[in-house]
Amino acid sequence: MKLGVCYYPEHWPRAWWRTDAARMAEIGIRRVRIGEFAWSRIEPEPGAYAWEWLDAAIETLAAAGLEVVLGTPTATPPKWLINAHPDILAVDRHGRPRKFGSRRHYCFSSETYRRESARIVTDLAGRYGAHPAVVAWQTDNEYGCHDTIESYSDSAARAFRTWLEKRYGDVAALNEAWGAVFWSQEYRSFAEVEPPNLTVTEANPAHRLDFQRFSSDQVVSYNRLQTDIIRAHAPGRDVVHNFMGFFTAFDHFDVAADLDAATWDSYPLGFLEQGWWPDETKRRFMRQGHPDQAAFHHDLYRGVGRGRWQVMEQQPGPVNWAPYNPAPLPGMVRLWTWEAFAHGAEVVSYFRWRQAPFAQEQMHAGLLRPDSVEDAAAREARQVFSELALAHGASTQRAPVALLFSYEAQWMLDIQRQGASFDYTQLCFEWYSAFRRLGLDVDILDPRQDLTGYALIAAPSLPIVRGDLRDRLLNSNAALLIGPRSGSKTEQYRIAEGLPPGALRGLLPITISRVESLRPNHTEQVNGEGAVTRWFEHVDGDAEVVERTAAGAPVWLQHECATYVAGWPDETLLRRICESVCARAGIETVWLPEALRLRTLGDLHFAFNYGSEPVSLDSVGATEGMNFVIGGPTLPPAGVAAWRRMAR
Amino acid sequence: MKLGVCYYPEHWPRAWWRTDAARMAEIGIRRVRIGEFAWSRIEPEPGAYAWEWLDAAIETLAAAGLEVVLGTPTATPPKWLINAHPDILAVDRHGRPRKFGSRRHYCFSSETYRRESARIVTDLAGRYGAHPAVVAWQTDNEYGCHDTIESYSDSAARAFRTWLEKRYGDVAALNEAWGAVFWSQEYRSFAEVEPPNLTVTEANPAHRLDFQRFSSDQVVSYNRLQTDIIRAHAPGRDVVHNFMGFFTAFDHFDVAADLDAATWDSYPLGFLEQGWWPDETKRRFMRQGHPDQAAFHHDLYRGVGRGRWQVMEQQPGPVNWAPYNPAPLPGMVRLWTWEAFAHGAEVVSYFRWRQAPFAQEQMHAGLLRPDSVEDAAAREARQVFSELALAHGASTQRAPVALLFSYEAQWMLDIQRQGASFDYTQLCFEWYSAFRRLGLDVDILDPRQDLTGYALIAAPSLPIVRGDLRDRLLNSNAALLIGPRSGSKTEQYRIAEGLPPGALRGLLPITISRVESLRPNHTEQVNGEGAVTRWFEHVDGDAEVVERTAAGAPVWLQHECATYVAGWPDETLLRRICESVCARAGIETVWLPEALRLRTLGDLHFAFNYGSEPVSLDSVGATEGMNFVIGGPTLPPAGVAAWRRMAR
Amino acid sequence: MKLGVCYYPEHWPRAWWRTDAARMAEIGIRRVRIGEFAWSRIEPEPGAYAWEWLDAAIETLAAAGLEVVLGTPTATPPKWLINAHPDILAVDRHGRPRKFGSRRHYCFSSETYRRESARIVTDLAGRYGAHPAVVAWQTDNEYGCHDTIESYSDSAARAFRTWLEKRYGDVAALNEAWGAVFWSQEYRSFAEVEPPNLTVTEANPAHRLDFQRFSSDQVVSYNRLQTDIIRAHAPGRDVVHNFMGFFTAFDHFDVAADLDAATWDSYPLGFLEQGWWPDETKRRFMRQGHPDQAAFHHDLYRGVGRGRWQVMEQQPGPVNWAPYNPAPLPGMVRLWTWEAFAHGAEVVSYFRWRQAPFAQEQMHAGLLRPDSVEDAAAREARQVFSELALAHGASTQRAPVALLFSYEAQWMLDIQRQGASFDYTQLCFEWYSAFRRLGLDVDILDPRQDLTGYALIAAPSLPIVRGDLRDRLLNSNAALLIGPRSGSKTEQYRIAEGLPPGALRGLLPITISRVESLRPNHTEQVNGEGAVTRWFEHVDGDAEVVERTAAGAPVWLQHECATYVAGWPDETLLRRICESVCARAGIETVWLPEALRLRTLGDLHFAFNYGSEPVSLDSVGATEGMNFVIGGPTLPPAGVAAWRRMAR
Repeated sequence: MKLGVCYYPEHWPRAWWRTDAARMAEIGIRRVRIGEFAWSRIEPEPGAYAWEWLDAAIETLAAAGLEVVLGTPTATPPKWLINAHPDILAVDRHGRPRKFGSRRHYCFSSETYRRESARIVTDLAGRYGAHPAVVAWQTDNEYGCHDTIESYSDSAARAFRTWLEKRYGDVAALNEAWGAVFWSQEYRSFAEVEPPNLTVTEANPAHRLDFQRFSSDQVVSYNRLQTDIIRAHAPGRDVVHNFMGFFTAFDHFDVAADLDAATWDSYPLGFLEQGWWPDETKRRFMRQGHPDQAAFHHDLYRGVGRGRWQVMEQQPGPVNWAPYNPAPLPGMVRLWTWEAFAHGAEVVSYFRWRQAPFAQEQMHAGLLRPDSVEDAAAREARQVFSELALAHGASTQRAPVALLFSYEAQWMLDIQRQGASFDYTQLCFEWYSAFRRLGLDVDILDPRQDLTGYALIAAPSLPIVRGDLRDRLLNSNAALLIGPRSGSKTEQYRIAEGLPPGALRGLLPITISRVESLRPNHTEQVNGEGAVTRWFEHVDGDAEVVERTAAGAPVWLQHECATYVAGWPDETLLRRICESVCARAGIETVWLPEALRLRTLGDLHFAFNYGSEPVSLDSVGATEGMNFVIGGPTLPPAGVAAWRRMAR
Repeated sequence: MKLGVCYYPEHWPRAWWRTDAARMAEIGIRRVRIGEFAWSRIEPEPGAYAWEWLDAAIETLAAAGLEVVLGTPTATPPKWLINAHPDILAVDRHGRPRKFGSRRHYCFSSETYRRESARIVTDLAGRYGAHPAVVAWQTDNEYGCHDTIESYSDSAARAFRTWLEKRYGDVAALNEAWGAVFWSQEYRSFAEVEPPNLTVTEANPAHRLDFQRFSSDQVVSYNRLQTDIIRAHAPGRDVVHNFMGFFTAFDHFDVAADLDAATWDSYPLGFLEQGWWPDETKRRFMRQGHPDQAAFHHDLYRGVGRGRWQVMEQQPGPVNWAPYNPAPLPGMVRLWTWEAFAHGAEVVSYFRWRQAPFAQEQMHAGLLRPDSVEDAAAREARQVFSELALAHGASTQRAPVALLFSYEAQWMLDIQRQGASFDYTQLCFEWYSAFRRLGLDVDILDPRQDLTGYALIAAPSLPIVRGDLRDRLLNSNAALLIGPRSGSKTEQYRIAEGLPPGALRGLLPITISRVESLRPNHTEQVNGEGAVTRWFEHVDGDAEVVERTAAGAPVWLQHECATYVAGWPDETLLRRICESVCARAGIETVWLPEALRLRTLGDLHFAFNYGSEPVSLDSVGATEGMNFVIGGPTLPPAGVAAWRRMAR
Repeated sequence: MKLGVCYYPEHWPRAWWRTDAARMAEIGIRRVRIGEFAWSRIEPEPGAYAWEWLDAAIETLAAAGLEVVLGTPTATPPKWLINAHPDILAVDRHGRPRKFGSRRHYCFSSETYRRESARIVTDLAGRYGAHPAVVAWQTDNEYGCHDTIESYSDSAARAFRTWLEKRYGDVAALNEAWGAVFWSQEYRSFAEVEPPNLTVTEANPAHRLDFQRFSSDQVVSYNRLQTDIIRAHAPGRDVVHNFMGFFTAFDHFDVAADLDAATWDSYPLGFLEQGWWPDETKRRFMRQGHPDQAAFHHDLYRGVGRGRWQVMEQQPGPVNWAPYNPAPLPGMVRLWTWEAFAHGAEVVSYFRWRQAPFAQEQMHAGLLRPDSVEDAAAREARQVFSELALAHGASTQRAPVALLFSYEAQWMLDIQRQGASFDYTQLCFEWYSAFRRLGLDVDILDPRQDLTGYALIAAPSLPIVRGDLRDRLLNSNAALLIGPRSGSKTEQYRIAEGLPPGALRGLLPITISRVESLRPNHTEQVNGEGAVTRWFEHVDGDAEVVERTAAGAPVWLQHECATYVAGWPDETLLRRICESVCARAGIETVWLPEALRLRTLGDLHFAFNYGSEPVSLDSVGATEGMNFVIGGPTLPPAGVAAWRRMAR
């Protein structure tokens, strides 16, 4: 457990660097990320490198005992490079080249940019790869930020055709796979295929899915281009990338396969404001963030990083980019930091050291104010640092619940939502939130990952169930909780053979004979408490019906170890289902107050109060058995408690 | 009265065709539409036709006793054709060519595409024109779907100039007609005129109206290109086109002048969800559709088809394209089918035979599920087939009420709504709905059609009243009910001479001295019950004032046989006006329950329950006098009843 | 005080002109604006002028004793000019040239258009500059209407680079000023800089601010091109431009520096409907306009015109361009006219003489209906004319309150709102409205103008406080009321040195340590009545805290003569602050009924009833002391009263 910070020495007078480094160390910072937007300073003129300032910056930090994470500067190719090679620019879905003037203006498919990226990364890694203070490397920055995964450039079109040819071999196979006979969309050669933009109405969903897979693969290969170079020059160093939250345009598991650890950028207040939550929820948690939002990503990126993960950017105060940007409740920066450590974060790194008084992010808070006075976050970071030893030695264990999350599922369900309100990530989040509210730890995994050892495996929705996954689920000892649209599609975006749940029929002897999406002011009540909203499936077959709608249609079905939910459950129904399935799986649960959350790290138990009122731990169990190392049995607003269970 | 279905043999293994045909026949299907998207299969390579499969498909259907409707495949020009002739592509209002990858990507003004269309239609009609099983031809498919009537291509610009030159003769006449002196918009030659897109603010309304007329005329001439060829090769066969509901971008009466019958595509649930109705109405009828929506179009297309009309595509279950896609109430497919027959449909054809498991419409239900099991609609179609004989011999008669509907009026009132909430089609629909709620049959006619023999002629709004129409109304014996903005404009989008109601002043001795549009939270109450919303006119003149606003302004005026409504009446006021005018015209009315509707077909009386609760026919009259052939005096949800009056 | 009208002789038969002129004179019109859209009639073919009709029109008006305002026709370059020089066209932010077909399609930076403009203005001014009837000239028409200030053409890009080079001298200074090191946005030469459109995410705020300043300066220099020519040919004539309300895309003070008087176009109903007010306010004032909206602009344009101003276009009835276009309450045209005169208008000119029955504005009312019958506005104008003598000799005096309004502030706060609901103009309007509701006259001034002699200076928000302004405020004897974000930024869009309020720290010994934007459903209550909404600042420092939030944070601070408001006050809090500050400044206030407003013109006191119910002047003071020249102590709906105080 380490604290870190993001620092831009190129933004400040050189005379300040030494003091900055000393102050970082004094606060308890151990790791500093630098360099990821500095191309115009590293190479101010084509081929004319200016290493001296970066050498000095790294030395200054190292001299203060700080570890350095060095970012490759490829998110911001400088103007001279763009002017020399306009084919670097991405093209938006309207066919317009994206102009220089902010960041991420490059196309992942540009051969020119891959060549230029290899050059700058090679030279950077060549210079600093063996530097003892440079302990880790970050590739690029926030792949995909500002909707930059997909590009419709000529380079992208060419690369897409090559990708298709590799996938399908001959174009007849593509026509067959896509069902291109529909609307006379058949192609006579791969050369005839184009990216699926600017069509009169929606393009073929298989066409769109393949373009999304291709676009994701372009990120993977672009990132690998960098990791291969870095590993060659920087042996033994971690190579990471900082992913974003609630961002699904490429497959993070695939990119992370080439990384040593996943890192992500955590902005609880901005994410809440931008998200799907009702206005009243946004108001209630406007200074705290949703109690499960950061945790969801912590658990996701632990999976993405195959156990190793960090927070690369932690919100330290008001940000500049949400529609409304309030200040966190006093104590929230500490709470967010501890929540991350409780989920197993190796590092929590604040963004940024000092609020910059200029340019786009000048209203984004830092640990220091623009006048170099410590802001609230610095004080809270110092407190965390003082508490870190209390958690020494605690480490993550397998959770009782595995929740399956698939980027490909998000693409598929977005390409044909079929109901405007069916958002895959929201569905997964609501299921995750239900387990958290029941006091449980959750691991979020890709369906391709090892699922053994879990008491309960939950799949909120998995349109594609490949044979290997089906077999692993069939052979699992876990209770299975499976949600709507699972097994509904094939690899090539066709309705599953024999209707959904397709490959899952071995687990669930049912047939989904019809599906319907429901408008927001209509719900289907169930006989027990709660209702189905948004999505409802008509189920035939032999599974036991646990609950039905008021009209008698099955909603909650059970067959041996598998439970199926034939719709989008509201909070009440979802709670009842999760409680019941947990009970069957032998998992103890407790229904927590709205703003309270728990997390276990080894033998250490954490509690977090996301509310603006104090909350007691009474509901969690007998507090006399808790040996508190942080806080106590009543948590103030933004309060953190940690305890070990007394031996009996 | 015949049932039909839409079938895509090219989507299925040839081995399935014979069984499919047999099952269709068994269900009661008599007519099958095929071919309308199959260009890439008919002509897989330029000039290399592959007729064999289509020969076989037609023979297979014919062998099962099925009639074939053959569609020309021009809605989906294949990729090789587009690549050879990119000038085929339409250009959207932002100036972007519309790309291949879905359908309807062609420009109606492309000379190349007209030539290629003539070629494929000639070859298709040449081969199958005389085939005994091919009883009808459909031109293209759903002209205008996905906003494809207007194109801003160079071809369109050239054709528009030619169209203008033909209309105006010399450019001075155009300048005068448009009032082009305004804002120095005068032209020195037709060559200077461009389509009215991408202007800084709104283009001249006469310019826009002429472009809309031109665009509509391009559809007419493109369609005629096909009908001329088909008629030459397929004598005696019906030539039809499948129009869409609530679609007004071209003049359906003009296109249908070259057709033998009008057909339309009826999707009650999708239309409800996409329409202007309040959320609560959408919820109440989410599984039924609005009680007057399908009927409105049935009555409209009976007018468009000069008495001959069909439903070419009938929704059979959930569709894929509305924001929310619920399932119909059990029985609704039967109800929709009977409602169509009750309005005089020759054929009701379901879309589609089997749900396709691939491509864009894979979530669109059919009579069969993707696994070939019968879906609910097949069972309901079979029931309708078993009931058809009961209605044998009944045929449509002139309704007591004619409602005038004009596509040109829609264009005019949309070009300058003057109030954001003034939607012409909605106004017409509300008037139509009021008459239906009063238990009446309605004929919807173009003002150019024969209006003799009606007891009541209603014109919700007719901005242009040409001399011929004025004379026919003056000489009519009918009661006239005339709505706001009627007679307000000239042929060339100028305010009528002497102010509105212009040419109608002979009928109504009034002057509209001022108009105002009202915001949604303001209404003008009338002294009786009800109010004016959205639109209000200040009326001077000598007509009798039947009712006034609370402030004393005339709202409901009467002069001899003519009634004028000086605004947009709410439901209460509209009901009172319609009841009163019907009473003057000697038409008996009854105010029906919200979900109940009636329709008369010859001596056969129908009732339809669009509600989810049972409804009794008590409100309709003495049920002991009804000789029921379908159902009885109480209609279950989605229920249909039909009776003849017992002789006294 | 004079009445005027806008007239388009080119729209009407020449035979009508004499009668029109006579009727104008009879109504009381003294001044007629003509010509501003007539280029295609003045120069129907390149270089071939057709002066004769314009000669005749001017002579006809002059013969009726009318003064002429002649508009240069540059807002509507004709089609032949555009076709000859397509580089005249502006390019929108999406990179699309804006097409001919409406108006304002030119780019301010086009060298071609500047040359052509100079030519037509020279020839026009050469012909009519010395004409005795032509008493004033209007340059162009409504600069910026339809979002036309910014253009992204090649001409604009070149001119922007020149402008930057002039401002910064060398590109290193630009990089430093913009903080271009951020995201590697540094430039190696001015030639590398582009306009800030089509960037992937927001461009650098300093880049955007400079582009806005540049765009504003282009309007200034384009306007000066015209004024220089006119002054050379038309000595002694007023040169004016007609500005728009609630339009801030260029600096009106800068443009007006080259004018003799400011004029503006007042459309109270359209502005209300398009504005930010809640629906209920829009309903209540739908036929009157907001009681402070026209007055705000009168007071603003008196400042813009350095004391000399006019209403060039006064709404006379329903307009055509708002979402809803109701009719004014009877009497409102008179009230609006009198309100303008009460604020010191030299002329109130109605738009337009006769409603045109053709083209885009055919639904825009005039003094005459299209059938030449007088509309309501003509009758009300005649009444005003009959009353004008009663106000003879009264003239504007310095108001007790100066409100500072800055176009640059609007640009800055819009470029980075930081909270979606922070609208600078709305904030200024709310502050202005609070003073008006307190019965006060207000002068609206640019911070660069002379501020001496005021009892109270209010700055709702002034991000940049330049040294000169700081000094003038420091040396002022006025009470100062300063709002949030004042002093927060430097000239080059950086956070102020030492944090906000930056340069104001001499007046207010405080530091804004943090700011936050608040979502609409959250407010921070103050201990007294009222609350802070939208925006809240954390304040450190030594100023006296007058009121705090319930949580104890300072909101209302006081230091010597200066009051600071650390957020966006709601109406209740704002009233209390304004009352308190006025009391300290020795200004008497009275809280008026919602729809009543007062205004003083010399010794003449006016009252205006914007309500639809009568209102008494009791609340204003003892009515027995009022010597009424217009109306009396009770004002009917839309009523006007004017009185002098009886000598005691």
